[in-house]
Order: sequence, then structure tokens, then C-alpha cells
Amino acid sequence: METDAKTVMDVLGRQAKDAAKAMRMADTGSKNRALQLAAAVIRREMKEILAANAMDMQAAEVSGLDAALKDRLLLNGDRVDAMAEGLEQIASLPDPVGAIDQLRFRPSGIQVGHMRVPLGVIGMIYESRPNVTADAAGLCLKSGNAAILRGGSEAIHSNRVITACLRRALVDSSLPQDAVQLVDSTDRALVGALITSDAYVDVIIPRGGKSLIERVAAESRVPVIKHLDGICHVYIDAAADTDMALNIAVNAKTHRYGVCNAMETLLIHQDTAAFVPAIVQAMLDKGVEVRGCEQIRAAAAGLDVSAATAEDWATEYLSPILSVRMVKDFEQAVDHIARFSSGHTETIVTNDYDAGQRFLREVDSSSVMWNASTRFADGFEYGLGAEIGISTDRLHVRGPVGLEGLTSQKWIVLGSGQVRQ
Amino acid sequence: METDAKTVMDVLGRQAKDAAKAMRMADTGSKNRALQLAAAVIRREMKEILAANAMDMQAAEVSGLDAALKDRLLLNGDRVDAMAEGLEQIASLPDPVGAIDQLRFRPSGIQVGHMRVPLGVIGMIYESRPNVTADAAGLCLKSGNAAILRGGSEAIHSNRVITACLRRALVDSSLPQDAVQLVDSTDRALVGALITSDAYVDVIIPRGGKSLIERVAAESRVPVIKHLDGICHVYIDAAADTDMALNIAVNAKTHRYGVCNAMETLLIHQDTAAFVPAIVQAMLDKGVEVRGCEQIRAAAAGLDVSAATAEDWATEYLSPILSVRMVKDFEQAVDHIARFSSGHTETIVTNDYDAGQRFLREVDSSSVMWNASTRFADGFEYGLGAEIGISTDRLHVRGPVGLEGLTSQKWIVLGSGQVRQ
Repeated sequence: METDAKTVMDVLGRQAKDAAKAMRMADTGSKNRALQLAAAVIRREMKEILAANAMDMQAAEVSGLDAALKDRLLLNGDRVDAMAEGLEQIASLPDPVGAIDQLRFRPSGIQVGHMRVPLGVIGMIYESRPNVTADAAGLCLKSGNAAILRGGSEAIHSNRVITACLRRALVDSSLPQDAVQLVDSTDRALVGALITSDAYVDVIIPRGGKSLIERVAAESRVPVIKHLDGICHVYIDAAADTDMALNIAVNAKTHRYGVCNAMETLLIHQDTAAFVPAIVQAMLDKGVEVRGCEQIRAAAAGLDVSAATAEDWATEYLSPILSVRMVKDFEQAVDHIARFSSGHTETIVTNDYDAGQRFLREVDSSSVMWNASTRFADGFEYGLGAEIGISTDRLHVRGPVGLEGLTSQKWIVLGSGQVRQ
Repeated sequence: METDAKTVMDVLGRQAKDAAKAMRMADTGSKNRALQLAAAVIRREMKEILAANAMDMQAAEVSGLDAALKDRLLLNGDRVDAMAEGLEQIASLPDPVGAIDQLRFRPSGIQVGHMRVPLGVIGMIYESRPNVTADAAGLCLKSGNAAILRGGSEAIHSNRVITACLRRALVDSSLPQDAVQLVDSTDRALVGALITSDAYVDVIIPRGGKSLIERVAAESRVPVIKHLDGICHVYIDAAADTDMALNIAVNAKTHRYGVCNAMETLLIHQDTAAFVPAIVQAMLDKGVEVRGCEQIRAAAAGLDVSAATAEDWATEYLSPILSVRMVKDFEQAVDHIARFSSGHTETIVTNDYDAGQRFLREVDSSSVMWNASTRFADGFEYGLGAEIGISTDRLHVRGPVGLEGLTSQKWIVLGSGQVRQ
């Protein structure tokens, strides 16, 4: 079994590596044509995609998949159309590959600069959402990489048809169809084989639940760009505009609950204690369960605030629950964040220049904000055009990962015959 | 034993993590003062350093270390002085930490940009050269990181004294002394413990022989910035200026033999076959052994050229040996490089615009050059001021790694109360 998985992956890996070689050199026009064509094929094959998705949904019914996962798995006309639109949007983004940067003369007379280049072969491991198949493949294609896609077994029928659409578009654009390959099996040993294929795969991007990502990070022999929890904080400073603070806190918590850039913990400076009842009430009005430290409960006396436990500070709720803590000063807020944050996104609300500047500098998260909702931590909002994920790692790329995160830079040197003295 | 190593490393790791927190926030002035002070302490303690080095040299004599390694291990007044100067040079480099880049407005009204931040804790694993201790520590310090240094056991006495100098300078500059820690033991199990300390260490940089680096890459649970071989090529195109080609090829091969950016294989376009005797003669004059393909041997008839075997193309000689192959066209040169290069540095010599442009784009090495000697692939020559190593990896950083390679970028968002719609 293990050996079989390795054999299967070796074939996919070799094909991906060959395809990556051609994709690395593909011109922008061909890549854009392939993306636009892929969108057209997906629209044309809508019926076939929906029929395949219906098979997945039926299997999900039988296996008793929970409602949230079933919603992620489901495709309908609008969702398929959005998938096609996503590919067209990627086509309209600037091509990062080949861009030359900071070319400058050195005392020796050589010119030295950077050229942006693809990473090579990207292994994507993800769960139920079949639209990730099109998104990820589109981003890999535009950035000149080859993708090996390992979607969730529950979406295998949908992913098969979507991948076929993409491969058809590649062939019709004279690009190698193996630039997009699906691991067409639900055998879990193949995940193991993929993340240990360091001879073929340059980077693994896992998207999914914490257990999947921890397994991949622990077992991978290939570098991983991973996204763990989003335990995001909003800190309302002593010098905050309270209307603004209310607005930002409510938006950060209630705009969407199940997303990684939603606020999970609110920190309130003790000097703004008078403001606690208003913000707690606003959360309760939205149906959010509030769990507070003792001081918060005292400040919000008469309102329904349960006692927060130590565990609450370390929990990514992804649901209408909020933990609230009162801090005695700026330092305590930053210390709390350093201890409990997952390094995803943190916001300070303040009109104090010094506090804002210090927060930007001292908080070590992939996105650090000043007077803005944590919900902005997103590839589209940041202007990346699209994102393949959000990295909570420190190396290579942090935060939302767009086309540039799927590339690297090599050095180029232009001379006129210089030699080392 | 294994458990002991883990216990030792946990202590070092925890101390390093605490130190990294302080170093991340250290201002440029303090870091520069610490570096300048370290240089002064090293000069002041020269006698002690040389005495410790004498103990290492004595042990090397007893253990029968080979001459090349002994030369690397040896310190003298000049070398110690160069170490101090290196630290002063690092002090004079711009501080990358905190630099804000590409801050721009988004349609939502928020401003989004990047801020450069340290990586955290850097584990350096290296061999005999004791000056790496000062270089690596200096670069980590300036880039706001904490370093755990694991030098070669043969240099343990020298490294101990050098580390003590650095730590004294940190304390006297009010920076945490644990920003520089030496793994003060020759127990090899500690290397294993260091590269699996993913709770404390953010990146491992191994410098040394291929077997060390392969072991670290295979066993590390921490991301690695590694440098494997340097099998560098010079390709003399049909449209090359032959004087320039001769100059560059001779410099790339003979300027220094034991370095990773030296040429190991010379590729010559068949249209410049008439030029083969001159270049072979030039190499022979320098005492270089020449191994050629059949066509090269025919073209250099009467000169001492032995037959290159398949193995030669894949060998990093690091010595006065050169393999030479005649290629029938540009494509064959690029294919040869794709197959045999280690992805370090490649040069084309040509006056043909199209060939040069294509070479820059199509060759996938960390440095790709046009009409310049491969010997320029170096942090100082590129203007990095110093280098901690040369990366042949694809992620995070490729080629010479300076201060910037020891940092990452987080996103910063400046708002005025914006929330997601």
C-alpha cells in the first residue's frame, strides 16, 4: 500500500516537474489565454460539474457529513460561475514572473538585481470546498508553477470534473496539461507520499482543519507554507475614539463568525472601563455570547457575561462567542497578545500616536493594524487580487499569500567582461 | 543521552526565545554599539583568543586533522583583527528591521504595506572556521535575531572565547547576552536536538560539507536555509568575444579553486571550436587538469586533455580540474546546465542580445550572469555588506544571504476606523 502510494506519486511528481519546466518559460499571454479558456470551459461544462457535485452530495448524505461541511461541498450555478470569474480575475492580474527589481551598478562595474521566478511544483492539500481546485490551480498557473492537487475525498467527483476542465484549457493553449494534476484517489497514504516527495515537490500548501495542518507540518519533507489558527485580538487603548472602537470591535467579531480573521478576544484598557457596558450590550444584541475576566464582569454588571476561563484566551471560537479582558496598560495588552495570539492579525484602536507606532512595531503577527477591522486581513482587501491562503509562518511569506508568494527571486548579473580581482 | 541533549537544548532554546523578544525591539543604536563593542573586546582579548586557538590546533595535531582543515581552524593576529573588522562593517550596514515598504491606499481607505521583521531564533551549524562564530553572531544581532551557534568540535576552545567576547559586549550594551549562545559541548546528539527544536528555533542555517547539510536537511523539523554544492558553469556562446570569454573562464576557474562559485564545467558552442586550443592552453598554463568530451579533445589535438566521464559533469571538484564540453547550440548548453548544475551560479559569455536575455530567463540558478565571472556570486560583491551563506534553496531566499535574508515581512494596516462591508 505504502509502496503503491509512492509509485503513484513518483509518476505525478515527474510529470509535474516536466510541466513546471515548461510553465516557468510560458509567456504571460499563453497563461492568460489558458485561464480565460478554463473559465469558458467551466461555464460550458456547468451541467457536468453540477452532476458530479450531486454525486458528492449524495455520498455526503450517506456518510452523514455535518451541515457546515455539506454547505462547503455544495456547488450551484452561482458558485460555479464565481469559480469561472475567479479564473478570469487571475488572468487580469499582472504576471509576477520575470520582473526585474533593483538592478544597480556595483563598484566592480557589474549590474546586480533580482528576477522573480516560479517556485516549481506546488502540492496543495485541502478539504471539502471544490472551488479551491480552480482557485489554487489558477494561481499556480499564473505564477508559472505546476500544481499537484489533493482535495478532500468527499469532493472527489467534483474535483475530477473541474480538473478535467482546467487540463483541457491548458492543452488548448499549448501549455502542458500536467501543470494541473489531481491526486485522483481517496487513499490517505497518498498525502503521506506527496509531502515526502522532496525530489519533485518544492512546497506544500495545506488548507484545512488544524489536525490536517499539524500532520502535514510534522511529517513533511518538503517546505510547508501553512496557516494554523486565527486567534485575533482587538485592543481598545486608553486614547481610543469609543465610537470607532465599537464599530471596529463589532465588525471584527460579527461580520462573519467562521473565518480566521474574525476577532476572538477583545482587550480593553482600564481607563475606558466606562465604555464596557456599551460594547458588551452591542455584542449581546448581535447574539454573541460574552465571556469576561472579573473586571469586565464587574464593569458590565447586570449584563449577561459569563466568566472566562484560562482556556478561553487560547481558543479560536469561529462562532458567536467572544472573550473580553480588561488590561491595566498598553504593555499588558501586548503581553497578552504575545502569549495567546496565533500570530495571525491584531488591531489597536487608538488616537495616541505613540501607542499606535509601538503596537505596529511590537506586535509580532502576520498582520498588525491600527484603527481598522481585523476582517481586512485578506488577499483581495490587500490588493493581491486573490489569495491561495494565509501564512502564519515566519519564513518566505507571512499573511495573505497571492501570486508573489508563489514565486521566489534569483539574482541576475549583467557585466561587460568583468572578472574578480 | 538523547534525553540529556533535549534538556540542554530546551534551556538554550527558551533563553534564545526570550532574548529574541528583546532583540526584535532593540533600536539600531544599541545593536550598532554592541557590534562595535564586540569588535573592541575581541581585539582586547586577542591573546586569550589565540591561546584558546592554540589548544584547538594542538588537539587537531593529535587527532590528525588534514592540512586544509587545519588552515581553516588556525587563527593569527591578522585573522582575529579581520573578525573584529567584520563586526564593525556589520555595524555600518543599514538596519533592515522596521523598514516599511510599499505602503499604499486601498479602495476601502486603509493603507496597506510591509514592515521588515526579524525571523526570531536562528540555529547556525558550522564546521572548523572559528571566524564564522563572530560573523554569524554579528549578522544575527544586527538583524534583530537571537543565535544559537553550534560550531565544529575541533574549534570548541576558540569558539568559547569568541562567544564570551560577544556576550560581554551585549551585556555592556544593555542587550540580552543570550542573543548569542554557543552549544558548549562536542556531543553530536546536540545537533539532532537543535534541528528538532521547532518550539524554539525558527530557522536552521547549516554551513559545511555536503554530508552535514544533507543530514540537517533530512532530519530537521525546523525550516532550513541550506547551501549544497556549487557546480557552476560558464557557457561560451557562438557570439562570444573570445578575449572576454578567455578572461572570464580563466578567472572563474583559477581565481580560487576551493570556493563554491568557482567554475567546474566549461561549455563551448561548436561555432567557436577554433578557440578551444587557446582556452585549453590557458588552463594548462595555470596548472589546471582539463577533462574534455570527444569533440573538445579533437579540437584541442596535441594538448593534454583527458576524457571526461559521465561522472565529471556532476562533480564539484573544488580543485584545479575542469571538465569541458562542446555543445551544438544554445539549447544544448541550457539543457546541460538544467541537468547537471547544482543551481548555484551560471554565466553566459555572448554579445548576442537574444541569447543573453534567454539565458537570464531560462537558467534556473540562484545567480545567472551575462558576461561576468561566476566568482562575483558573493554577498560583498552584490552589495549585501556581508553574507551568512549562499542559499541553493528555492523558498525564502536564493543565492547570497545577507541581513535581509535573516528577516521576514509582516503586513501593516493603517486605518481611520474602517470596517469590512
